[in-house]
Amino acid sequence: MTLIDRCKKEVPKKVHKAVEDEPIPAKKLAKMIKKGRAVIPNNPIHDPDPKPIGEGLKVKINVNIGTSKDLHDVEKEMEKLKVAEDYGSDAVMDLSTGGDIDKVRRDVIEKTTLPVGTVPIYQCGLTKARESSIVEMTSDEIFNSIRKHAEDGVDFVTVHCGVTQDVLESLKESGRLTDIVSRGGSFLAAWILHNQEENPLYAEFDYLLEIAREYDLTLSLGDGLRPGSIADATDRPQIQELITLGELVKRSREEGVQAMVEGPGHVPLDQVETNVKIQKELCQGAPFYVLGPLVTDFAPGYDHISGAIGGALAAYHGADFLCYVTPAEHLGLPDVEDVREGVVASKIAAHAADVARGIDKDIDWNISKARKNLDWKNMFEKVVDPEKAKRLREEKNIKDPEDDACSMCGDVCAIKMVDEYFG
Amino acid sequence: MTLIDRCKKEVPKKVHKAVEDEPIPAKKLAKMIKKGRAVIPNNPIHDPDPKPIGEGLKVKINVNIGTSKDLHDVEKEMEKLKVAEDYGSDAVMDLSTGGDIDKVRRDVIEKTTLPVGTVPIYQCGLTKARESSIVEMTSDEIFNSIRKHAEDGVDFVTVHCGVTQDVLESLKESGRLTDIVSRGGSFLAAWILHNQEENPLYAEFDYLLEIAREYDLTLSLGDGLRPGSIADATDRPQIQELITLGELVKRSREEGVQAMVEGPGHVPLDQVETNVKIQKELCQGAPFYVLGPLVTDFAPGYDHISGAIGGALAAYHGADFLCYVTPAEHLGLPDVEDVREGVVASKIAAHAADVARGIDKDIDWNISKARKNLDWKNMFEKVVDPEKAKRLREEKNIKDPEDDACSMCGDVCAIKMVDEYFG
Repeated sequence: MTLIDRCKKEVPKKVHKAVEDEPIPAKKLAKMIKKGRAVIPNNPIHDPDPKPIGEGLKVKINVNIGTSKDLHDVEKEMEKLKVAEDYGSDAVMDLSTGGDIDKVRRDVIEKTTLPVGTVPIYQCGLTKARESSIVEMTSDEIFNSIRKHAEDGVDFVTVHCGVTQDVLESLKESGRLTDIVSRGGSFLAAWILHNQEENPLYAEFDYLLEIAREYDLTLSLGDGLRPGSIADATDRPQIQELITLGELVKRSREEGVQAMVEGPGHVPLDQVETNVKIQKELCQGAPFYVLGPLVTDFAPGYDHISGAIGGALAAYHGADFLCYVTPAEHLGLPDVEDVREGVVASKIAAHAADVARGIDKDIDWNISKARKNLDWKNMFEKVVDPEKAKRLREEKNIKDPEDDACSMCGDVCAIKMVDEYFG
Repeated sequence: MTLIDRCKKEVPKKVHKAVEDEPIPAKKLAKMIKKGRAVIPNNPIHDPDPKPIGEGLKVKINVNIGTSKDLHDVEKEMEKLKVAEDYGSDAVMDLSTGGDIDKVRRDVIEKTTLPVGTVPIYQCGLTKARESSIVEMTSDEIFNSIRKHAEDGVDFVTVHCGVTQDVLESLKESGRLTDIVSRGGSFLAAWILHNQEENPLYAEFDYLLEIAREYDLTLSLGDGLRPGSIADATDRPQIQELITLGELVKRSREEGVQAMVEGPGHVPLDQVETNVKIQKELCQGAPFYVLGPLVTDFAPGYDHISGAIGGALAAYHGADFLCYVTPAEHLGLPDVEDVREGVVASKIAAHAADVARGIDKDIDWNISKARKNLDWKNMFEKVVDPEKAKRLREEKNIKDPEDDACSMCGDVCAIKMVDEYFG
């Protein structure tokens, strides 16, 4: 029985545990899971801490880690995992494409209590590419790679089922600036165009559902056609793929398989709300997992900021799950420090959206109360990165670290001055 | 004759020059200036490059620099100024409160072609505080400090004219969490409460307008009651002060004095649009100069990100001028590196808002075109921080810096793969 099946009969223990820190009760969450409007990625083989994602819940964030061909130090990836956990990520995806891919994935699953996601087509395609060519992958190989990840305990997988022959036709005609920027999407597009056959993940979606049911694997329906530039946002190929994903959400629900939908990408500020609303409509309220979105193309080196702007706004309008972006995006593989910058930026975006939706406002209230009291110790306890905040305060206030004001205003601190009269 | 006076008769040369890189023609800008819906801070003694701020124009950003009691190295401030200029700030405010305040201000004005702003009450209050007490300032001293700055060539001054006896009564009753966080606001509040007299900047606003006319000084009507925490956003003291500022905007226009209005502060995402709309209504479309706004209180050490989120959204909804925020905000005086981080974050916010309003989209298009072509050289030319982007690419791609892909995907670069088929 999958979690959806169980929610149809009762409120499972896992659901009770999942709402401990959420603004909705267990019964409501169970109902949302049953309807497919919320998911808890949880493969019983791994059985991570339940992190519910969806309508009315706190916004969740994901950190991508993983090796590449040139950089495949397993220990480094474990350090990244630690940083993701320490700064409050709600999930981690292992996107390894280099070195011993199996080992990294298995180590990540063993070490973390966070739900773990992967993109099985990476490993499948790469193995084939190194033997012959990606276009030589067989349908069996594609499905077997998914099964292998599920057997290892992976909780959710990105599957680019919406990259179909039709949508590629639409892409050809669209005059897009940056055709396909999704790596998994590009593998399948190459495969489809070379073989002149339909995407197996679409053509044999029922078989994918069988595997997913067997392991209670959550499907993250990938957006292979996501816009890779502001110019391409909300265009026909993107929306056409989204329509297909909406159909697949419906079929997943019918089989008791949890599904969420991945989204852009690069989206200008004026189209962020529209992107969320159209996903929620076309996909019948399925959880929306957005990659950023980046609100401009002009900030490589700072795409975590560009992504925090888009992510905060998307989440405020109803996106449920934010994939972090690091300063290394578009430039190279992120290192440990990039991961830290990325997860903090994403956490700020998620929390800002929560606060705007009336959730966790007490966190801000308590910080500001402590700030007003010039009670630095208590203030630092609740902030997104206590260590950095403390370090900056120490570095920037060399004269007298015991002084209760700060070096920005020193003896003309507004708070101190007003307190004399209002206190 | 002030710029407003001149715009009533013709389209001044300065206005023609100001629109060179703007989406509106000179005639329209002159009309907007005449109506008070746009300003060009320009004291003829300094005569900086014209940077028009207001409706329909590109979003502008401001960088604050300046010494404090503990840190007052003039050279460091000149370095900060250089960074502000290099990364595209449109204005700089010298908020010095330590060391030789006159020298810093004069050096800044001499060195930069950007419009320069100050908050004269800082120097006035501090001088008095060190002699006796801030509450001993005389009305003459307050106005003379403004005149002195104007004589030095300052282009715009923040004047906290809206901190009135009435608004302080309202504040006392409001149960605010973080009373007053504006430094200038706190000086005047202390003065009013101690002396039981009206704020001279309000009571003698006509005299302020006389000085402003004389030097064609742009008034930046300060928000002494801006919310200093999410909990206080959009509360009665803030809005009551804004109503007063709206009246003062009207009186400024009648005297041919350019005026803009400063705004929050700390504002949750759900109230950002409201804050812009209400300012535009109450202040009859006067340019809105927002300080951030920060969308959460929980990110000290990363308030440049919190401010970029709020700033982008505010600007998209009509805020005209973004005051940058640095990672040092709430913790200490920013150093040169903090200034760089702050100005870049603010630039990203401003540009994202411009792109969403249909302005400068070609910048993103060209970057993405170069990205699609894996033409790193051209891509780097147009980005917000070419140096950092180049450095990250070099650092993260150790194997073969001539390779046209990057270490994130290496030989499975989506762009390369799709190009083979879509070419």
